[in-house]
Amino acid sequence: MINIAIFGYGVVGTGVAEVIRTNSHSIANKSGEEIFVKKIVDIRDITDSPDINILTKDAEEVFRDDSISIVVETIGGIGAAYEITKRALSSGRHVVTSNKELVATFGPELLTLAKENGVHYLFEASVGGGIPIIRPLYSCLAANEIDGITGILNGTTNYILTKMSKEGSDFSAALKEAQAKGYAEADPTADVEGHDACRKIAILSSIAYNQFVDYKNIVTEGITKISAADMMYAEELGAVIKLVALSKYIGDKIYARVSPCMVSKEYILSNVNDVFNAIVVSGNAIGEAMFYGPGAGKLPTASAVVADVIDIVKNIDSNSRISWKINGENNTFDPMKAETSFFIRVKPAEKNTAKESIEKIFGGSNFVEIPEAGLSGEIAFVVPKQAEGLTFEGIEKLKAQGAVLETLNVIRML
Amino acid sequence: MINIAIFGYGVVGTGVAEVIRTNSHSIANKSGEEIFVKKIVDIRDITDSPDINILTKDAEEVFRDDSISIVVETIGGIGAAYEITKRALSSGRHVVTSNKELVATFGPELLTLAKENGVHYLFEASVGGGIPIIRPLYSCLAANEIDGITGILNGTTNYILTKMSKEGSDFSAALKEAQAKGYAEADPTADVEGHDACRKIAILSSIAYNQFVDYKNIVTEGITKISAADMMYAEELGAVIKLVALSKYIGDKIYARVSPCMVSKEYILSNVNDVFNAIVVSGNAIGEAMFYGPGAGKLPTASAVVADVIDIVKNIDSNSRISWKINGENNTFDPMKAETSFFIRVKPAEKNTAKESIEKIFGGSNFVEIPEAGLSGEIAFVVPKQAEGLTFEGIEKLKAQGAVLETLNVIRML
Repeated sequence: MINIAIFGYGVVGTGVAEVIRTNSHSIANKSGEEIFVKKIVDIRDITDSPDINILTKDAEEVFRDDSISIVVETIGGIGAAYEITKRALSSGRHVVTSNKELVATFGPELLTLAKENGVHYLFEASVGGGIPIIRPLYSCLAANEIDGITGILNGTTNYILTKMSKEGSDFSAALKEAQAKGYAEADPTADVEGHDACRKIAILSSIAYNQFVDYKNIVTEGITKISAADMMYAEELGAVIKLVALSKYIGDKIYARVSPCMVSKEYILSNVNDVFNAIVVSGNAIGEAMFYGPGAGKLPTASAVVADVIDIVKNIDSNSRISWKINGENNTFDPMKAETSFFIRVKPAEKNTAKESIEKIFGGSNFVEIPEAGLSGEIAFVVPKQAEGLTFEGIEKLKAQGAVLETLNVIRML
Repeated sequence: MINIAIFGYGVVGTGVAEVIRTNSHSIANKSGEEIFVKKIVDIRDITDSPDINILTKDAEEVFRDDSISIVVETIGGIGAAYEITKRALSSGRHVVTSNKELVATFGPELLTLAKENGVHYLFEASVGGGIPIIRPLYSCLAANEIDGITGILNGTTNYILTKMSKEGSDFSAALKEAQAKGYAEADPTADVEGHDACRKIAILSSIAYNQFVDYKNIVTEGITKISAADMMYAEELGAVIKLVALSKYIGDKIYARVSPCMVSKEYILSNVNDVFNAIVVSGNAIGEAMFYGPGAGKLPTASAVVADVIDIVKNIDSNSRISWKINGENNTFDPMKAETSFFIRVKPAEKNTAKESIEKIFGGSNFVEIPEAGLSGEIAFVVPKQAEGLTFEGIEKLKAQGAVLETLNVIRML
C-alpha cells in the first residue's frame, strides 16, 4: 500500500481524493498497489467533507509520517506551494502537482532537487487539465525531434471567443457569461490577458525542447481587444479567432508567443470550441498529432494528477526522468524578427489616400471589405508574412504620415 | 548501447531504421542509451538500401547474437511474424510490433509469453499509426475507468469517405483515386470491409477494459454500400458519414462494432478528414479526450515503434505491464440488443401507403426529403434509438407486407 498526502483541498485537491476513492479498485489493478489518501492538509476551516477524518491544518502531521511517500500539491501559487514542494522533495517524497505557476517559475530548481533526492516531480495536470500531453511529449513522441507546438491552452478565453464568434456578442458580455457559468474568475486577468496560457506554453516548450523556456521571455497578448467586428472579418477570411499559444525552433533559438490569431477553418484547431483545449505537436517523424480534451475542471484535472501518482507507484524506485537545462543567456528568438502575417484594421484620414500609403508600405496587402457590416469608416487589410518588427514599423509610418489616424486592431494570422 | 534487430524491411521496417538513424542523438538523450540497429532480416532480395550492410535473410544471425536484446517485428500477418515473435520472447528478447493482426489474434498468448520470460511485448504502432493511443490508454488515463472508445481507425476508408463527401463522387471513383495515391491497396478488402478497423478496436478495447476482446465477436460492416445519395442525406441531416469503430460497456459486457455512421457535424470526430485517424476515449474522471494524427505512413508508424523501443530501454529490467485476461465465455454484448438510431432508405411499392406502414412499425420516425436531389422514387427516414434487432425486424416486416420492395441502405446514427 502506498500512502499519499494532499496539500490544498480546493477544486483539484477534492477531485484527487474523489477519483482515488471512486476508482480505487481499478487504480490498484493498474498500479500494482493500493493507493491510500492518508492526510489532507488545508489551512482553511473545512467542516463538511467526506474527507473530514483525514483533514488537518498541520503540515507537520505529514512530514512526521514516514509512511507517506507521495505528496500531491494542489495549493497553487508560488508561496506556500513552493515551500511545501521543496520540503517534500528534500525529505525524499515524490511530488505531483497541477500548479503551472510553480512549475513555470521554479521548475528547473525543483526538478534538480527531485533528482538529487532520487524522487519524481511530475506535473501532467499543469497543462491542458485532463488532456495527456506532458507524458506524450516526452514518452510517446520520444522518437521525434519536436519542431513545434501550437495550442489552445486556456479554456476561459476559448469559451469567450467561441461565444463571441457564434453569437456575435462582444467581449465584455461574453466575459460576464463566462463568469456567471463559473468558467471565468471574478478577476479574470490571468486568463484574458494570456498569462495562464503563457505559463503553459513555457512548460510544454521546456519539455519538448529539453531546455528551460522562461515564461518571462514569451510575448504575451490577451483577448480583451477582440471585438465583434474582428469576428466578422475572421468569418469573411474563412477563419475563427482563437487565443493561440505556440512555440517552435527558429535556427537554434526558441520562438514562443501567446496571442489571438486568425485560425483558418480548414485547420483542425479551429474546431476546438467552448472550454476545451487542444495541443498540436509537430515532430520530424510523426508530422502532426493533436491532443484534445477538457482543459480544466475538477475531475479531469484530478485524472491527470492521479495518473502521475500511478506512474510513480509503478516506478517508485526510479527518479525524475525530466531535467531542464538552463542556458545562461536568453534562449528565445527575438520576436521582432519572427515572420508573421497580420490582419490590421485602421481608421484612415482619407480612405483612398490611406489605401495608397498602405500599398506603398506593405506591398502586396489584401484589403478586406464587408459592405453589409457598417464598417465603412475603416480600412482592413492583411499584411503578408514578414518580420513582425517591419510590420509594426509600417503601422507607425502610416500614422506618422497622417494617412492613418488610429490603429483599431492588429491580429496575427496563424 | 542497446542493439536491436528489425524483422521485415517493408514500409514500417525501413521507417524504423530511418528514424533511429536520423534522430540517434535525441533518442540516446531520452532513453539514456544509444540505440543501434545491428541486423535487419528480410527474406527478399534487397540490393539498394542505406542499410545494406546489416541486411540478412537469415534469422539465425539474430538469434545467435546475444547482444541483441530487442526485436522489432514489422513483417505483418500471422505466419512468420507469429513464429519470430514467439521465438524472440522465449529467448528473453523484448519485442515491439506494428502488427495489428498478430496482436488481435494472438495477443493474450504473446503477452503471457512475454511475462513468463520477463520481457516486454509492446504494440503502440498497431493502432492509429503514429498517434499515441495505447500508452495514453493504460498510462496517462490510468486514473479513469474507461467507459467507451469511439474512433476513426482506418485512413483509407476515411480518405474515400472524405472524397465522396466533399466532391460528390461515388465509392468506386473515390476508391480508384485512393489507390492511385497509394492510400489503398490493389486489393482493398481489408480496409473497405472494415476488417482493419475491427482488429484495431479489438486491441484498444482489450487495453481499455483490461480483458481480451476477440475481434471475431465484433460486428463489422464496411463502406462499399455507401453512395453519393447517402452523402446528400447526411448533409441534409447536418452530419457526415464516417467509418466508426466503437466499443463500450453495456452492463458487464462489452459492446463493440465497426460500421459506417452518420456523425453530427457538431461532434469533434466529424472534422477528422482524409487519411487522418482519431480516437475519442471516455473515462469517468476525464470525460472525453481525443487523440488525432496520421493513422498510417512510414515515418509516423515508425515513430510509434521507436517510442516503444525507447520505453523498453528506459525500463529494460522490468517486464510487460499489460496482460489480457481471457473470459472463457463470450464477453461481448449481443449486438441485436444494442440500442441504436438508424437512417434507412427504402424503395416503396406506393409511397403514401409505405409511409403509413413505416409510421405504424417504427412509431416516431422522421422522414427526410431532399426535393432537389432527384431521389423521389425512395423514402428515407430516421428510426429512433431502440434495440437493433427490433429495427431489422421492422424492415423485414415492411418487405413482408409488400409496402417496401427493396432496402436501399441502412446506416447507423452515431
